[in-house]
Amino acid sequence: MYYNDPRLQFPVRVENPDPRFARALQQAIGGVEGEIRVCMQYFFQGWGARGPKKYRDMLLTTATEELGHIEMLATAVALNLEGAPLSLQEEVSQDAIGGAILNGVNFQQILSSGLNAMPVNSDGIPFDMSHIYASGNAAADMTANVMAESTGRVLAVRLYNMTDDPGMKEMLQFLIARDTMHQNQWLAALEDMGGFEKNFPIPNSHPQGEELQEFSYAFLGFDRDGAEPVQGRWSNGTSMDGKGTFTSRPMEPLGDEPKLAPPPPASGAQDKQMDGTSILAGLV
Amino acid sequence: MYYNDPRLQFPVRVENPDPRFARALQQAIGGVEGEIRVCMQYFFQGWGARGPKKYRDMLLTTATEELGHIEMLATAVALNLEGAPLSLQEEVSQDAIGGAILNGVNFQQILSSGLNAMPVNSDGIPFDMSHIYASGNAAADMTANVMAESTGRVLAVRLYNMTDDPGMKEMLQFLIARDTMHQNQWLAALEDMGGFEKNFPIPNSHPQGEELQEFSYAFLGFDRDGAEPVQGRWSNGTSMDGKGTFTSRPMEPLGDEPKLAPPPPASGAQDKQMDGTSILAGLV
Amino acid sequence: MYYNDPRLQFPVRVENPDPRFARALQQAIGGVEGEIRVCMQYFFQGWGARGPKKYRDMLLTTATEELGHIEMLATAVALNLEGAPLSLQEEVSQDAIGGAILNGVNFQQILSSGLNAMPVNSDGIPFDMSHIYASGNAAADMTANVMAESTGRVLAVRLYNMTDDPGMKEMLQFLIARDTMHQNQWLAALEDMGGFEKNFPIPNSHPQGEELQEFSYAFLGFDRDGAEPVQGRWSNGTSMDGKGTFTSRPMEPLGDEPKLAPPPPASGAQDKQMDGTSILAGLV
Amino acid sequence: MYYNDPRLQFPVRVENPDPRFARALQQAIGGVEGEIRVCMQYFFQGWGARGPKKYRDMLLTTATEELGHIEMLATAVALNLEGAPLSLQEEVSQDAIGGAILNGVNFQQILSSGLNAMPVNSDGIPFDMSHIYASGNAAADMTANVMAESTGRVLAVRLYNMTDDPGMKEMLQFLIARDTMHQNQWLAALEDMGGFEKNFPIPNSHPQGEELQEFSYAFLGFDRDGAEPVQGRWSNGTSMDGKGTFTSRPMEPLGDEPKLAPPPPASGAQDKQMDGTSILAGLV
Amino acid sequence: MYYNDPRLQFPVRVENPDPRFARALQQAIGGVEGEIRVCMQYFFQGWGARGPKKYRDMLLTTATEELGHIEMLATAVALNLEGAPLSLQEEVSQDAIGGAILNGVNFQQILSSGLNAMPVNSDGIPFDMSHIYASGNAAADMTANVMAESTGRVLAVRLYNMTDDPGMKEMLQFLIARDTMHQNQWLAALEDMGGFEKNFPIPNSHPQGEELQEFSYAFLGFDRDGAEPVQGRWSNGTSMDGKGTFTSRPMEPLGDEPKLAPPPPASGAQDKQMDGTSILAGLV
Amino acid sequence: MYYNDPRLQFPVRVENPDPRFARALQQAIGGVEGEIRVCMQYFFQGWGARGPKKYRDMLLTTATEELGHIEMLATAVALNLEGAPLSLQEEVSQDAIGGAILNGVNFQQILSSGLNAMPVNSDGIPFDMSHIYASGNAAADMTANVMAESTGRVLAVRLYNMTDDPGMKEMLQFLIARDTMHQNQWLAALEDMGGFEKNFPIPNSHPQGEELQEFSYAFLGFDRDGAEPVQGRWSNGTSMDGKGTFTSRPMEPLGDEPKLAPPPPASGAQDKQMDGTSILAGLV
Repeated sequence: MYYNDPRLQFPVRVENPDPRFARALQQAIGGVEGEIRVCMQYFFQGWGARGPKKYRDMLLTTATEELGHIEMLATAVALNLEGAPLSLQEEVSQDAIGGAILNGVNFQQILSSGLNAMPVNSDGIPFDMSHIYASGNAAADMTANVMAESTGRVLAVRLYNMTDDPGMKEMLQFLIARDTMHQNQWLAALEDMGGFEKNFPIPNSHPQGEELQEFSYAFLGFDRDGAEPVQGRWSNGTSMDGKGTFTSRPMEPLGDEPKLAPPPPASGAQDKQMDGTSILAGLV
Repeated sequence: MYYNDPRLQFPVRVENPDPRFARALQQAIGGVEGEIRVCMQYFFQGWGARGPKKYRDMLLTTATEELGHIEMLATAVALNLEGAPLSLQEEVSQDAIGGAILNGVNFQQILSSGLNAMPVNSDGIPFDMSHIYASGNAAADMTANVMAESTGRVLAVRLYNMTDDPGMKEMLQFLIARDTMHQNQWLAALEDMGGFEKNFPIPNSHPQGEELQEFSYAFLGFDRDGAEPVQGRWSNGTSMDGKGTFTSRPMEPLGDEPKLAPPPPASGAQDKQMDGTSILAGLV
Repeated sequence: MYYNDPRLQFPVRVENPDPRFARALQQAIGGVEGEIRVCMQYFFQGWGARGPKKYRDMLLTTATEELGHIEMLATAVALNLEGAPLSLQEEVSQDAIGGAILNGVNFQQILSSGLNAMPVNSDGIPFDMSHIYASGNAAADMTANVMAESTGRVLAVRLYNMTDDPGMKEMLQFLIARDTMHQNQWLAALEDMGGFEKNFPIPNSHPQGEELQEFSYAFLGFDRDGAEPVQGRWSNGTSMDGKGTFTSRPMEPLGDEPKLAPPPPASGAQDKQMDGTSILAGLV
Repeated sequence: MYYNDPRLQFPVRVENPDPRFARALQQAIGGVEGEIRVCMQYFFQGWGARGPKKYRDMLLTTATEELGHIEMLATAVALNLEGAPLSLQEEVSQDAIGGAILNGVNFQQILSSGLNAMPVNSDGIPFDMSHIYASGNAAADMTANVMAESTGRVLAVRLYNMTDDPGMKEMLQFLIARDTMHQNQWLAALEDMGGFEKNFPIPNSHPQGEELQEFSYAFLGFDRDGAEPVQGRWSNGTSMDGKGTFTSRPMEPLGDEPKLAPPPPASGAQDKQMDGTSILAGLV
Repeated sequence: MYYNDPRLQFPVRVENPDPRFARALQQAIGGVEGEIRVCMQYFFQGWGARGPKKYRDMLLTTATEELGHIEMLATAVALNLEGAPLSLQEEVSQDAIGGAILNGVNFQQILSSGLNAMPVNSDGIPFDMSHIYASGNAAADMTANVMAESTGRVLAVRLYNMTDDPGMKEMLQFLIARDTMHQNQWLAALEDMGGFEKNFPIPNSHPQGEELQEFSYAFLGFDRDGAEPVQGRWSNGTSMDGKGTFTSRPMEPLGDEPKLAPPPPASGAQDKQMDGTSILAGLV
Repeated sequence: MYYNDPRLQFPVRVENPDPRFARALQQAIGGVEGEIRVCMQYFFQGWGARGPKKYRDMLLTTATEELGHIEMLATAVALNLEGAPLSLQEEVSQDAIGGAILNGVNFQQILSSGLNAMPVNSDGIPFDMSHIYASGNAAADMTANVMAESTGRVLAVRLYNMTDDPGMKEMLQFLIARDTMHQNQWLAALEDMGGFEKNFPIPNSHPQGEELQEFSYAFLGFDRDGAEPVQGRWSNGTSMDGKGTFTSRPMEPLGDEPKLAPPPPASGAQDKQMDGTSILAGLV
């Protein structure tokens, strides 16, 4: 169950509103690297956490924090839209220096939201929840979270570099720092669960003896000329999970050409597909 | 540029076709954990790789392998659909033992694909390319790849446990092994790029001095009662990137309640929203 | 900013887990009538509320409640999935009485979520945020909220009728009651803003003198035979906003056939589309 | 069954074509507030209308009108795109006064539609039919229609304010007037069905005695500090459906922390999640 | 502008309602092969038709017919859902002969639509308007229409084979016949525009002298072993547009490996990507 | 199985990078007319090809070629983005001549991809796989392929006309030529399968005697006034499949008004919908 406080986690102020930066900030709200994603991902992982209780607690704690980050960014978008042009006939829409600002505004923020944030990315595309990764495997979820915070911090840094508004830079300094923590936090959770060697390959509950181990640590090449594939840490030495030794080799097909049965008569195919004679005739 | 060989990377055979397993296998083709995702993700990361050439080569090599995995799974789906019921009046549709098989079949595989694989998941939902993570940051991309292969192997294990068809189990043994390799491979690439300490926090090109470092390694609590947040590896000791020390504390709001300007007259809001008097009157 | 309490707003218990009811409950989480929708809709309306502060407070208060409802339903889904069949070879998958349960299970809940709730509807379709209506017009938003709670309560009643599990019925009794309140709450907010007559037509900030008032209260008929359109409250008496009188009449076209210019030469059209002669020749 | 007349319901003319206004108008075609939505929503509600025939007739009548509105807007988009720049090297693409027009054009209208309307919104996002609300409950559907026309008129007013082209303003005057009527029409239909008190809470076919009535008219607070929630019409007096009395109070959790079973062995989770010992060890 | 008649274009009757056939029929409403698609495609092509008026007239005529087909199918779905099980505790949900019918029902049709048709496909996935092809090139549009009617008739035949309800078979006989006509109609329109030779390659307004004609009629092989590609009508003889002669040959790369510049400093990449030394070091 | 060569199929060079052309080129990657579509469509058609082997071989051959075209275009996008503005404060963002370039850039290419191609269209909308048509009917698939290459070549011509960069024009000359071939190739495949008369109407495996032949070759009119529909090749002469004779006539409804049963009591409808008396009362 959840509670709210009308105040913000961190101050949000905008000195020079720019509706184009409002458009850019939307990526941090509704983009796949954005805050709705981490918020909802941690909530769903937490609500479905089966196993040690402390991971549930940690997930819900940080999910709750992220909800406040969406709020901060939504506030930042609303403030950047104050004073935005509303029509093609306004002066700013005719502005020669800097181009017509209106050209760079997301029209949905005028037409659909009335100068407010929307749960969409910088192109106005609504966030869709297929990006919420909650696999039921705690270690896989942690890798999803490391990824989410990595792309999230990359995005926050790009936004930081995109503006010189002091208020916006300060807010982003805070969000970048939180992403630093959260990257470390999910890596620490993997460590807490036993570290990379105990958890990889994910899932660790599958007996490795059942997999085709000849292919478990081999870097396979698909160069047309049959050349040895490009070498690196991935082709030599102990595997990262400590359970094998990397090798490499070019790959050849091990299977035959697939042979599918002709379609059954009631399946709506063309007669030539169903006709044995045609099939023979069709062979090169 | 690419070339093909009509044979399969690994043999695909189905002893007892089951159209419901065809439905399940679709998750490994068009699900977010599936092979289209890794294939296209590695291709786009490779095509846009800026920096050391060897990462581009490795990415395109493995992308090319994954294309062959989609092919294997598409073949497996097609074979599992051979003999599937096509109508409500067939005997198998009336099968008391095991329930009416038709109830468990994805109708799109009858109606839309003519008993073939589709680029959709087990619920028939088409894969959408927003799941292709190619951030332009090589380390963030590697975390995305570790995640993709982790959820991918979890899925392959679940499919392996779902069937007892010997041909399908053998194919999945191979795919599970490849996922083992690929999890290790992307972790190895991170190692090759300097390891966790050199690469985290991602991006490592942002000067950490500019972020609000007070919050960079603090696990913040949001317990309603102001309790200390749940403890773990994430709240004590050296941070995973080796650049800080974990602390923890309950969080209080640092910002005020946000104050948004009333909407401008031409913005299509209600008059009560724009009317200063109303706003005052509206205050509790 | 937000806080959490690890306990639930209302008890959630399941006496007889049924994975098919888990599938049905997903509609109340990720369906367009579901709780993610109302939660996020009220948050975005609140975060962007321009005008009297009390509406912002009310919106964020109820948004926070709804977050706890998603949590309750996610818990209910997880509990209904305990004991679900995981494979085609299990006994329950061969169950003659009641049909094969597995046929009615959403495979994604086995393959993707590991027996947990997902932010998807009963067909496994992820919720997408285009359903978050936050228009920047407070009255329009209230109508959106009345609608959301109306379809939400219809859904909750249907789920209530679909099960006879005592725990599930009790949880739904609570949620149905909350939907009763919330329908009344948003109607009350409209009342608080001045009532229907003051707020309609929405937006009330547009001077009605500028619209083509001849058509503002006329129910127009499009019966092929030119018949008078079907009569009802909408065709007679004072309009619901009290600002006009309903009339009705059959409609005739007031505009001509549109004439579009031929496509310009560089526009990639067929030559016949661009050729004046052809156009003349093309006339019947 | 349907018939057409090649003429338009209302004249559409454009004096000064502006491809950026074409982009804006797309919101009224394929946006969630747009005409495809109301057209298809009324059709599906009408085709599935169970109950009094007059509602079916009214729904199909107005659906048929809305189809003509899409046509008008599509014509308006096509006319606004005449003369649009087709390339980066054209003069207008280099226009200093007013900015490069091309920057503000939706490229899809050049590349995909050949200077015509598309069933997309102002960001080029295709309309998706999940926005068609046809719940099978006539009163819930009417609230959906009020909402659709409310956001629709807000949008039309914003478009009206965005342009000073006399032809476009005239067309929008007509559409705004029709939205006035349609808002009133759906409210009148609710009145015709018995009015708010008879229809709310929706659905009115559920015996209210079965819901948990203690929570049916209570405005619950979730302020972290346990404060009384914000007061208004929603916290005092008779409820809007006339069936209860509004109260308010802060909310406390009534349920316990949820306890989910550990995942079963074949479910692809990590071993630490399944291991009782680990779970104990994992407890704080 | 449009008109309606409350009667159906063709009688729709269902003798033995089957909710699973209702699910199947949804593919013909909201599937990509369905009637919403052709209806909306012909409308948008017609509304944007630039060039000879008769094509506009024909497109709008047939679009109007297709609207009546959606109506027929929506009626068929509603009738097939009459008597459908509404709960897990009903007898039919426990039906051993034929399996539990409920397992095969689309739950959305119970929970979201109240036993009515929805604008979704057989998996409950909403139709999205990106499938409306209206390219602005009349010949390309005709090929899109031939395709739509071809997949549409394949679907109708599959539905016809799926049921033995006499009413449903009769309705489908009609729809199949109309698809026969419409396939012929769009081919006839291409003929009317000058036939294949005059119209292909589409667009015919691009001077072929500007394309790289060496590759305009060559079937290229990508066999890994450099073999001659598979022969057929496509590799020999006059091309189908009559403007060239088919040839075939294996393909070799004509371009070099691409060289992308390192990312700029402010772009949020990893330092190793930006470091010239690293790049050199990174070369194999 | 597949192989790669690090070189490109055709040289890609950009003399004057323009980030707005990068945005336009995205349509050819991730638009519905783009290369991902044809690549994946031919792969899925090939992997599921039931019938003569040569069609499978041809489909996989050309699918493999198309993969290389995505690669070429991705390279072109990356090169056009080199030097793009990264922030609002840069000089180019203030450029008066030509407008602020930044206004015309897709922000996702700065924020999400780090100056690289994405699998999205020119509006940043991700490609979704519902556009992969692989119907299981070989002739229907060929019509889908003709359509894909027709809209594809229209798009390529429009891009060719949009730029005057010599490198880009040369690359597009090549792609336009390949589209010429591929249009011819799929038409040739239809010819190879027996030609139009043998294959139409698609599917040709349905006995035409079962369809309602009275409607198989009739162009039906829906003019409100009952006028004869517009005449053309489609209303006179032998049908294009050679199996009938075109006729035309105005259409009248053949079915009655549909009568749906009232909703059952547990279905969550309003009581007025379920009440027989109300229904009678509701009749006009």
